[in-house]
Amino acid sequence: MRSFLIIGNKASTKPFNLNDIPGAGRMDIICRSIAQALFISHGIRKDVEVYALLLGEPEPPKVVLIKGDEVKRMSPDERNIAAHIKKALALNASSDWKRVQSGVYVAKKSIEELLREIGQRYEIYYLREDGKDIEEVAKEIHNPLFIIGDHLGLLAEQEKVVMSYAKEILSVSKISIMAEQCVVICNYVLDKFGR
Amino acid sequence: MRSFLIIGNKASTKPFNLNDIPGAGRMDIICRSIAQALFISHGIRKDVEVYALLLGEPEPPKVVLIKGDEVKRMSPDERNIAAHIKKALALNASSDWKRVQSGVYVAKKSIEELLREIGQRYEIYYLREDGKDIEEVAKEIHNPLFIIGDHLGLLAEQEKVVMSYAKEILSVSKISIMAEQCVVICNYVLDKFGR
Repeated sequence: MRSFLIIGNKASTKPFNLNDIPGAGRMDIICRSIAQALFISHGIRKDVEVYALLLGEPEPPKVVLIKGDEVKRMSPDERNIAAHIKKALALNASSDWKRVQSGVYVAKKSIEELLREIGQRYEIYYLREDGKDIEEVAKEIHNPLFIIGDHLGLLAEQEKVVMSYAKEILSVSKISIMAEQCVVICNYVLDKFGR
Repeated sequence: MRSFLIIGNKASTKPFNLNDIPGAGRMDIICRSIAQALFISHGIRKDVEVYALLLGEPEPPKVVLIKGDEVKRMSPDERNIAAHIKKALALNASSDWKRVQSGVYVAKKSIEELLREIGQRYEIYYLREDGKDIEEVAKEIHNPLFIIGDHLGLLAEQEKVVMSYAKEILSVSKISIMAEQCVVICNYVLDKFGR
């Protein structure tokens, strides 16, 4: 399995206008990260799951989970993925996972609650520009959860929680690139090293 | 300079509905490829230009050119980039480049006409799964134009034209990935090797 956790510090936690996806707290970044994690040409990576932690108003925190081996009728364009998230946000989320539709789940969890629940299942790698080059350790990566910030990065208190679970801080580029580009490079490097 | 030519075999050549970007001949692939070529976190790569060759109905062929060092008011979400392309498609295109707005140009050119015009300016690399690993030759790449197909790939007659200009066929992945993922990996590898 490969897993990704994308943190949207301003991403909307209620249904939003599909004609203004960036206006929903940069939900476009979340949508593109999900697309790049899951999709290849004419298919979905069945061994990938993506957690999107949405921390914008009015009901933070919420987590939307998408499982590649279950999800149906999803396509890689932003609007399609946004529509799935919108549907998840219309449900009354609680601390237990609720199934929105095949392969899509929603729950009300903070980053601390989420990592307390799932942190033991994965090798957790926090992606940050000043981390160790992912290619140096790629051969040893096993069942990773990559944690990636949005355009705002991670806040200090989020980093503290993440670091208490993280195996290592990894970098995928010396320049500051977009979240979805980090996702593509993680997949590229893991594919290349046969992980 | 780094340049990309994305070929959209069905991509619309007239203004289209921004609420159904995939319905415009998979214009979403074109938009994502442009976004991934140009944008980094909080910025645009000024040394990148992207040619989008649109070959769908009703007025093929058209080429939209976006120059990273000139373009303004563009953001990486699909709808924003689609709106720029839509504006370009509303103009009466001719064989000469017409300026749509700062950094965006449109012309009526086939792949043969386009490569005849610009082919000598670049080292042309055709991206195909069975090509040579891009990392093997990355150090020697200079002023590249990467040619990338959409979900349909290149047709036989297009490949023939491309191969008459191409320096080499390169591969960025052993698995069949999406056009915009190829773009991200090209940027990643060139960044890594300082090209």
